Amino acid sequence: MNFRMIKQTLGYLLIFEAAFLLVPIATAAVYAEKTALFAFVATLVLCLACGITLVSVLKPKSKQLFARDGFLIASASWLLMGLFGALPFVFSGAIPNYIDALFEIVSGFTTTGASILPEVESLPKSMLMWRSFSHWVGGMGVLVFIMVFLPLSGGQNMHIMKAESPGPSVSKLVPRVKDTAFILYAIYVVLTVLQFVILLAAGNNAFDSANLAFATAGTGGFGIRNDSMGSFSPTTQMIVAVFMILFSINFNSYFFILCRNFKDAFNTEVKVFLGIVVAATTIIALNINLANIEGAESLGDAFRHAFFTVSSIISTAGFSTLDFDIWPEVSKMILVLILFTGGCAGATCGGIKLSRIILMFKGMTRELSQLTHPKQIKKITMDARPVDREVVRSVNAYMIGYVAVFMTSLFLISLNNYDFTTNFTAVATTVNNVGPGLSMVGPTCNFAFFSPFSKLVLIFNMLAGRLELFPVLVLFAPSTWKK
Amino acid sequence: MNFRMIKQTLGYLLIFEAAFLLVPIATAAVYAEKTALFAFVATLVLCLACGITLVSVLKPKSKQLFARDGFLIASASWLLMGLFGALPFVFSGAIPNYIDALFEIVSGFTTTGASILPEVESLPKSMLMWRSFSHWVGGMGVLVFIMVFLPLSGGQNMHIMKAESPGPSVSKLVPRVKDTAFILYAIYVVLTVLQFVILLAAGNNAFDSANLAFATAGTGGFGIRNDSMGSFSPTTQMIVAVFMILFSINFNSYFFILCRNFKDAFNTEVKVFLGIVVAATTIIALNINLANIEGAESLGDAFRHAFFTVSSIISTAGFSTLDFDIWPEVSKMILVLILFTGGCAGATCGGIKLSRIILMFKGMTRELSQLTHPKQIKKITMDARPVDREVVRSVNAYMIGYVAVFMTSLFLISLNNYDFTTNFTAVATTVNNVGPGLSMVGPTCNFAFFSPFSKLVLIFNMLAGRLELFPVLVLFAPSTWKK
Repeated sequence: MNFRMIKQTLGYLLIFEAAFLLVPIATAAVYAEKTALFAFVATLVLCLACGITLVSVLKPKSKQLFARDGFLIASASWLLMGLFGALPFVFSGAIPNYIDALFEIVSGFTTTGASILPEVESLPKSMLMWRSFSHWVGGMGVLVFIMVFLPLSGGQNMHIMKAESPGPSVSKLVPRVKDTAFILYAIYVVLTVLQFVILLAAGNNAFDSANLAFATAGTGGFGIRNDSMGSFSPTTQMIVAVFMILFSINFNSYFFILCRNFKDAFNTEVKVFLGIVVAATTIIALNINLANIEGAESLGDAFRHAFFTVSSIISTAGFSTLDFDIWPEVSKMILVLILFTGGCAGATCGGIKLSRIILMFKGMTRELSQLTHPKQIKKITMDARPVDREVVRSVNAYMIGYVAVFMTSLFLISLNNYDFTTNFTAVATTVNNVGPGLSMVGPTCNFAFFSPFSKLVLIFNMLAGRLELFPVLVLFAPSTWKK
Repeated sequence: MNFRMIKQTLGYLLIFEAAFLLVPIATAAVYAEKTALFAFVATLVLCLACGITLVSVLKPKSKQLFARDGFLIASASWLLMGLFGALPFVFSGAIPNYIDALFEIVSGFTTTGASILPEVESLPKSMLMWRSFSHWVGGMGVLVFIMVFLPLSGGQNMHIMKAESPGPSVSKLVPRVKDTAFILYAIYVVLTVLQFVILLAAGNNAFDSANLAFATAGTGGFGIRNDSMGSFSPTTQMIVAVFMILFSINFNSYFFILCRNFKDAFNTEVKVFLGIVVAATTIIALNINLANIEGAESLGDAFRHAFFTVSSIISTAGFSTLDFDIWPEVSKMILVLILFTGGCAGATCGGIKLSRIILMFKGMTRELSQLTHPKQIKKITMDARPVDREVVRSVNAYMIGYVAVFMTSLFLISLNNYDFTTNFTAVATTVNNVGPGLSMVGPTCNFAFFSPFSKLVLIFNMLAGRLELFPVLVLFAPSTWKK
């Protein structure tokens, strides 16, 4: 382990976090929120002080980073970002309890959107902005962002990018990793600005538009109104729904579209993703319409709410327009299923990711065919290209780690003695970075009632989910710490 | 596909099923149950007629069986055995609805023990015997039994044994497959007789002792009283609990003990199994004692009920002494977790099997160590022996198939619009061949309220679970049906 280099990277991270704080500081200044302003500035000073200290003392002797350093950097960075990011809530008194504040901001950075706040409208506007902005920062991965500036050589960037990027494998769009990261960030910024402008044009004010754009881009889902998206105009709801879908598609696809390579842009994963959205929307719309759910009496409204909710859950944003906890069991079941799948790899959404699920199915089908034709040798392919054996094996290991983390958390959460549906969906919604669950953690509820211990477990789940398990799990493997 | 050979094997199966019917026929004769006697004899005649026809017309040109023939034989046999085995219930009017009767007997043969009957004490004794005996027949695998008599050569027996035996891999104890099967059956019979004698000695009558011994041996769990095992004496409960544990340990272990090879007898899986039993029992006993659950007020009683319940769930028998649905959430969660694990491979219990879970964990740990030390090559070992790559891959494919079957069933069951806990545990308890679940399918409830469609889904789950997925899943793979 190159601990000095790790320490230095964490120092840079805190300096970047200080810079991110300028956004809520500006908001606090505009709306003259004195207490909040003080809280943010105090946090900024702390971040800068700690950051500069970490960067300047005990300079690294070598810049060499190995795979395990990359994983440790990823885990430690995300934890550190949360530990400091929670401070403004505590300093300003908006969320006096530190564990609650940590839950809230980790939920923000990991783009989960689960909240411990019973209502948000009484919060200072700058605090709302910090919550929404944390989604945007976390959506694309802050380390990849730092990488564009950090003085590292190519191969070492890849370790960090692998540890932070969603999906089973990372492909470089252009030969240099830094350039790839730059292109992806550019797409992210352009899409966010586009959504902001469209929201403005639809009649929303600048504050609302910025918050919604940030929270949609990171597929986070923190609301700025107590009813999440319920009281926004249908037009605004549809804009958000469409952008949630756009931010769940592999960003590589946009690059391929720009290069006029439509075959690679609309690959298997994207097609499966869009197919699921259409199918789920149709079934749920008909189901809630026939069940006469309030607000879904007309088929048009039913389709609007169904599309919004499907888009919100599969993108793992977690906004809501209706309380889906009262929907019929089939609709809820579909939501639970797409909550696990999530969208495409290489986007900002959470969940298991469709490419992993497609690969797992292909692996299973191959195994079945091997069982009946033992002498046949068959390679798994995706979009007519053979898939590396390493990738297939890593997807299997991911799935086992996923089940292990899930079951362990479920057991630990059950110590609180709430009902099974609450426990199950609370774990599912945090580990998949969605936000709302069912029963006591349904879309109209919040996570405040859990014990501090359960909150720490859920915080772990959110971080493990966002980093896609391995960077967090390797910390528990003894082999990681061997010389 | 060698369809003629498959057809012939199915014919033999029906002839064997006719022979099995002699047990309830004898019971009906002893207790002078006329209607039941008629129903069983009619079914016997039908089985014989169909069986002899299948065996004698269109004799196979070749006795050659390939892997896919083995899978098809396994799936078709188990379905056929259920289809005919359900008839006595319908003929006698004990269960007039055919789907209900099919549910009941498939639950019997697959050693699940989930029932659609609201109460069982009004049933004729011969019907109770048929239910219990079906557990015993299904526990060890009927095909392995037929194999001992069928004129097949060694390698072809292996295909059938692989398809029907529980666990990730089948090892031969002695060079010939037939001899291995014979040894395992001998152990099964001896243990069953031993339990029967001990139950008699503890003061139970012959009918109760035989039923309990059959249902325990197959780790089935059909009760012969309305309160399952609640009203039996504590001594009887403990005898059953201990034997449920014994029937969940790989039968190879008993062979090794006879050979005085204690190292192989107490292998990793057995140790893990016993460790889990002790840990789960202790936690649950303390938990229900502290929660002042009725019947568990004294620490001794709490340990007795906890041990019985843990033994019943991990062995996937599914008997109950107390209504664990009202226990605290932690205890219920532990039960749900061990319901998934099940006991050892090569025993009569259901579930995923511990050896699979141990292998999956080893696979994941290896992956984590590979992530941080990419150049290292590490083989997975079990009990100091390297594990075949094929086995590891097959375990992964099993797990993916398991999740796929689970999620699909969960969705289909949700069409009934019952609550999530009911749906989730109904699927879990059938696919793992346990019996009771939680909420509406708790230990004091039954499965009668489900729609016929849901019942068919659950029947599928029970069969898929008993045959450990692959023999059933290959039937859906197009490659199986290719020339």
